[in-house]
Amino acid sequence: MTRYSLEVRIKPRPGLLDPEGKAIHHALQSLGWGAVDEVRVGKVIYIDLEAESEAAATETATAMCRKILANPVTEDFQVSMAVGVPAGKLEGAQS
Amino acid sequence: MTRYSLEVRIKPRPGLLDPEGKAIHHALQSLGWGAVDEVRVGKVIYIDLEAESEAAATETATAMCRKILANPVTEDFQVSMAVGVPAGKLEGAQS
Repeated sequence: MTRYSLEVRIKPRPGLLDPEGKAIHHALQSLGWGAVDEVRVGKVIYIDLEAESEAAATETATAMCRKILANPVTEDFQVSMAVGVPAGKLEGAQS
Repeated sequence: MTRYSLEVRIKPRPGLLDPEGKAIHHALQSLGWGAVDEVRVGKVIYIDLEAESEAAATETATAMCRKILANPVTEDFQVSMAVGVPAGKLEGAQS
């Protein structure tokens, strides 16, 4: 068993209102960033788990999304490997 | 000016408690996913903006993070290009 770090991105579906995204969009524009066209806010869940292979880890995370992490009516999700960035480790703010 | 789609990931810093991540971790374990080691929950902000170049777009998003998107005391951020996935478009739940 190997430890894999996965990244699950959960995003509001396109048709849906996203009040948090709208609020950020307006804030950015009033701060002078007029070139912003659209802002959408989602969640990212970092999961570290033990699995036999990368494929098995991804499959497990996808099953988790279907079962409890994402709402199929309002959200889309995307599972990917977060190579070299364990959930508990510092990613480092870009400086 | 070209339209770029960026993805800003904001994550609680390692030392900090993450109650939402802990709650998800426990939920996953009680549903039988015992191989999960750690769960951390962050935000992902999809930003579509007009810029001269990819570098300029990334720089703008980094400035936004420093100014209002991320809390430097409690969060780390990471800016990347979301190639081919405009903020308003369907990413498609993996099926």
